[in-house]
Amino acid sequence: MESTREWAEKQDSEDPLSSFRAEFDLPPGVIQLNGNSLGPLHGGVPEALDRVVRREWGEHLIRGWSEDGWWDAPVRVGDRIGRLIGAGPGQTVVGESTSVQLFNALTAAARLRPERTVLVSDAANFPTDRYLAASVARTLGLRLVETTVDGLPGVLARHRGEVGPVLCGAVDFRTGELWDLVRTTAEVRAAGGIAVWDLSHAAGAVPVEVDAAGVDLAVGCGYKYLSGGPGAPAFLYAAARHHDRLDLPLTGWHGHVRPFDMADEFVPAPGIDRARTGTPHILSLLALEAALVPLERAGVAAVREKSLRLGDLLVRLLADRLPAPARPEVVTPAAHHRRGSHLALRCPEASSVSAALMERGIVTDARPPDLLRLCLNGLYVSYTDVFDAVTALGDVRKEMSG
Amino acid sequence: MESTREWAEKQDSEDPLSSFRAEFDLPPGVIQLNGNSLGPLHGGVPEALDRVVRREWGEHLIRGWSEDGWWDAPVRVGDRIGRLIGAGPGQTVVGESTSVQLFNALTAAARLRPERTVLVSDAANFPTDRYLAASVARTLGLRLVETTVDGLPGVLARHRGEVGPVLCGAVDFRTGELWDLVRTTAEVRAAGGIAVWDLSHAAGAVPVEVDAAGVDLAVGCGYKYLSGGPGAPAFLYAAARHHDRLDLPLTGWHGHVRPFDMADEFVPAPGIDRARTGTPHILSLLALEAALVPLERAGVAAVREKSLRLGDLLVRLLADRLPAPARPEVVTPAAHHRRGSHLALRCPEASSVSAALMERGIVTDARPPDLLRLCLNGLYVSYTDVFDAVTALGDVRKEMSG
Repeated sequence: MESTREWAEKQDSEDPLSSFRAEFDLPPGVIQLNGNSLGPLHGGVPEALDRVVRREWGEHLIRGWSEDGWWDAPVRVGDRIGRLIGAGPGQTVVGESTSVQLFNALTAAARLRPERTVLVSDAANFPTDRYLAASVARTLGLRLVETTVDGLPGVLARHRGEVGPVLCGAVDFRTGELWDLVRTTAEVRAAGGIAVWDLSHAAGAVPVEVDAAGVDLAVGCGYKYLSGGPGAPAFLYAAARHHDRLDLPLTGWHGHVRPFDMADEFVPAPGIDRARTGTPHILSLLALEAALVPLERAGVAAVREKSLRLGDLLVRLLADRLPAPARPEVVTPAAHHRRGSHLALRCPEASSVSAALMERGIVTDARPPDLLRLCLNGLYVSYTDVFDAVTALGDVRKEMSG
Repeated sequence: MESTREWAEKQDSEDPLSSFRAEFDLPPGVIQLNGNSLGPLHGGVPEALDRVVRREWGEHLIRGWSEDGWWDAPVRVGDRIGRLIGAGPGQTVVGESTSVQLFNALTAAARLRPERTVLVSDAANFPTDRYLAASVARTLGLRLVETTVDGLPGVLARHRGEVGPVLCGAVDFRTGELWDLVRTTAEVRAAGGIAVWDLSHAAGAVPVEVDAAGVDLAVGCGYKYLSGGPGAPAFLYAAARHHDRLDLPLTGWHGHVRPFDMADEFVPAPGIDRARTGTPHILSLLALEAALVPLERAGVAAVREKSLRLGDLLVRLLADRLPAPARPEVVTPAAHHRRGSHLALRCPEASSVSAALMERGIVTDARPPDLLRLCLNGLYVSYTDVFDAVTALGDVRKEMSG
C-alpha cells in the first residue's frame, strides 16, 4: 500500500505544504529534483523584479538607493536569510558570489587568530571552497591542511595551538551527508580555532542555529534552497562578538563607516555593515529577496520535515519497486540527523541516467564519479513526484541495461 | 542665437543620435544628468530580463546554463564590453563588483612583478579604488604610495625598480578630468610596472583603446555609462600577453580549466576564463548585456562627439545666461582631450543645489566638498536638456541666494 501511487497522492492531499507547489512556475510535466543546484522560479519573483526594473530603476533612477531601500538591501536581505539560519539581526550581509565571500570570510578568520599558522579545510568541501581555502592559505602564508569532518578532531590534536580558520561544509555536496555543526563548532572553538561554515546546502533546507551553535563565520549560496535565481548573490554571516575585530580584505566603499564622505582612508563601519563590499547587484539581490517569501511563510522546520518524509519514501520505493540489478545504492545516511535535503544514489553512468531522466521531464544532476543526486525540497516537491521519479528511474535503468 | 532654446531645439532636430533618447524609459519631464552614477533604463532591458526570468530560469531551469548561454555569459558580455574599450576578444570578463575586481586585478598585477615592493595608487581615485589598493598592499606586504597622475613620473623615478602595480582612474570621478591613458601606460611600463586602469568613468563614454595603448589590466563599472542597472556587474580586462602568468587570488570554480571535473586542486583555465570567479549573477549580468545594445548601435565615437558638444554648450550657456554671482566655476578642463563625459561645477552648497534641481526633475549629484556633477551622455541627453538644466540652475541659485 505504501508503495503505490494512490498512497503518494493521498499524502499530497493531506500535506499542509501542498499548495506551495502550484505557486512555483514549473512547466507542466516537469519534476524539479535539482533545487540543490538551481531552485525554481516562484511566481512572486517576476512581478517583484519588474517593479524594481520599471518603477524603481526606470522612474526613480538614483533615488532608488534611498527611496526604494536599495542601499539597505544587503543587510535587510541578510537579516531575512539570517532568520532562516538562526542568526539574530545585524550579523548577515548579502552580495557577490560564494567564492568571493569565502575569500573574505577565511581571510578575516585568519586575521582573528594572527598567531595561528594552519588553515584547515574539509576535504569533501565543494571545489570552490577548497580552491579558495588554498588561495587564502597561500596569500597569507598559512599551511593548508585538508581533512574530513570525521578526521577533524585528530587534526586539531596534531596541530594543537596552530589551527586558525576551519572551513567545513554543513552538508556534503556529493553524498548529502549532514554534519553535526554544533559539535564540530564546539571542537574548533575549544581548540582556539575559528569555525567557518559553508551553508550552501543547508540554508533554507535544514534547521541551522548559527547563533546558538556559536558559529564564528559562515557563507552560503542564494540560488539553491533559497531559490533566488541563477547566480543569486551569496551571504556572509559573522557573529557579533567578532565585529569589532573583523578585518576583511574586500574593503569596498559600501563597508565604510561614512561612505559618502569619500574619505581618504578606509574606516570600517560598525557591525556587519563593514562586510558590505562594492555596489550590490540590485536586480539579482531583490529577485532573491522576493524568492524568500514562500520559504518564510512555510518555515524551514516544516520544509525540512516534509523533505525527510520524501526521502524516506524515495528509499522505500527504490527497495520495493526496483529489482535488485536496477536498484542503485543509496549513499546518503538513512538516519535523519545525518541526512541533508538531497539523496545521492550510486549509479554507473550517472550522467547518462540524469540525461535520460531529463528527457522525461525529471530534473536531477550527477556528480563525479558515479552519483545521481535527487533533491527533495519540501516546498515544491510532492510525494507523487517522488513516486513518478522512481518509476522513471526504473524505466531508464532497464532501458540502459537492455 | 547660440544661447537660445530655439538653437538647442535645432541642434536636436539635426542630431543623428536624437532618436535614442526616446528608447530610454525616462519619466516625462525628467532630465537625466547623472548617468555617471546610474545610467537610465533602456526600453529593451525589461523585455530581455523578463525572457531570462520566465522562459530561461522558469522553464528551462538548470538547462539555462547550456541552452541559453548562461555559462558563457561572463566572457560573451566581456567581449562585447571589450569592443567598447578597444580590447580584442578573449581578454575581458564580467562579474562581481568593481571593488572585488580591483582586489583581483591588483593582486594579480603584484604577482606579475614579485620582486617589486611598491604599489602606486592615484590619490584622486574613487574611494573604493584607494581602499582596495591599501588592502592589497597590506595583504601582500607592499608599500602603498599615493600620488596624482601628474606626479606619477616623479614617483616612478624616486622608486626606480621598485614599483609593481600602478592603479589610475582614466577619468577623475570628481573633476571629470580625462587623463592621458596612452602616455601614462607607457610611463608605467617603461619603469617596469604594471598599468592597472579603472575605466569606470570611461567605458562607453570616451574612446579608449586598451590593446593599442598596451594597458596591462583594467576594471570598470557596469552601471554608469554602460547603463546596466543598479549594481550591474563589473568587468576585468587582462592583456593576453599576461594570461599564462595571471595568478588571481579569487580562484572560484568557474575559473578552473575543467570545472565539472570537481578536481582537488585549482588549475586555472587558459585565457581570460581563469578570471571568472564564482557563479555569475545571471539576472544582473544579462540585464547589462541587453543594455549594451543601444550603445553598440550608436557607437562610442558618436556618443563621445555629441557629449563634447553638449559640454561646450553647457559652458557657453553658463557664461551667457547666468549672471556672475550665480555662475559656478567649471572645474573640468575645457580642452576636449582633457575632458571626460561629465562636467563638474564648483558651487557652494552643491548638495542643496542638486536636491533643488531634483525637485525640478533634473537629476544630478554632488561630491564633497563643493562639486556639482552634470553628466552629458550623448546617448540620451539632448541639447534642449542642457538648455533647460542651465535655466533651472540659474533659478535655483537665485532662489538660494535670495
